[in-house]
Amino acid sequence: MPLRLGVMASGAGSNFEALVDSFRHGSLCGEVALLVVNNRDCGAQRRAERLGIDWELHDHRLQPNREQLDQALVQAFRTASVDLVVMAGWMRVVTPILIGAFPNRLINIHPSLLPSFRGLDAVGQALAAGVTLAGCTAHLVSEEVDAGRILVQAAVPVLSGDDHASLSRRIQVQEHRILPLAVALAAQG
Amino acid sequence: MPLRLGVMASGAGSNFEALVDSFRHGSLCGEVALLVVNNRDCGAQRRAERLGIDWELHDHRLQPNREQLDQALVQAFRTASVDLVVMAGWMRVVTPILIGAFPNRLINIHPSLLPSFRGLDAVGQALAAGVTLAGCTAHLVSEEVDAGRILVQAAVPVLSGDDHASLSRRIQVQEHRILPLAVALAAQG
Repeated sequence: MPLRLGVMASGAGSNFEALVDSFRHGSLCGEVALLVVNNRDCGAQRRAERLGIDWELHDHRLQPNREQLDQALVQAFRTASVDLVVMAGWMRVVTPILIGAFPNRLINIHPSLLPSFRGLDAVGQALAAGVTLAGCTAHLVSEEVDAGRILVQAAVPVLSGDDHASLSRRIQVQEHRILPLAVALAAQG
Repeated sequence: MPLRLGVMASGAGSNFEALVDSFRHGSLCGEVALLVVNNRDCGAQRRAERLGIDWELHDHRLQPNREQLDQALVQAFRTASVDLVVMAGWMRVVTPILIGAFPNRLINIHPSLLPSFRGLDAVGQALAAGVTLAGCTAHLVSEEVDAGRILVQAAVPVLSGDDHASLSRRIQVQEHRILPLAVALAAQG
């Protein structure tokens, strides 16, 4: 049965577009059924408009707490008959309400080789630590932040002269590559 | 000036032999001037005998404390006019006595992509965490365990069906490759 994917994004949305591409021109069978954004006019929303993907704004500033926001997301994804959800740069901590609604079917992408560099600004943490290999991890979401079961990882070299932007770009190329793989793995259980 | 390398090993000594090979058949200019072992008849000692490398036994069980052991090592390496020291599977915590005698010239190899999986049984830790990329790190030794400046890292995939032995072997192949690179980097300052 073709997959109906939900995507959550707060920013530019390049991972969201990579997922759409994987359905339209790549190896995934199904579609991105709904994009949820929390920031009006973010890049992800504009990409959805260009690509003709349904999107909804759920502004966390208009919700009394994290739980209410997540409850609204769960309802939106259920209404769209979503099977699996990807947090593709969702800059909010999620609650058991969302995690419990999609057990083993909620995926996050994090720009480090977990368990190294959990939390905010993983690329900055990697540069500060002086690692020579950085990377990214697609994993299932558990209640501990950046600690769920790992699905796919990819490594990239840190080159001399790298700054935050250049290293982030190199990691992002790999994020676009591994996220569809992670979706396929999670969809197969 | 050709490098005079000291090596410390507790076990099988395959990293020690990889270093000897790099001097004899590879890219390093100089020699392994002295191997120190702490376990009599360990694999490293037998390799040194076969390869014709000077070696000394410094059994930690015969020293009253870590500091006295390290003081004996420093004296041994100084007598052998060693410039740079590699801990190639040295299963003892070292003290500021050794670290301070070879500032920025004491290298350790650790079987993980640091800062992930510091400490004992890094391979077991990686398997338990379910990472899909494991690896090794050659780094300068600082007083905090497995936390000094990183020189070289290499990643290997964790394959389905891997056990501790198979993953350890795959990592060790990369250790043999990156350790000579780390020696060259540290020797150049």
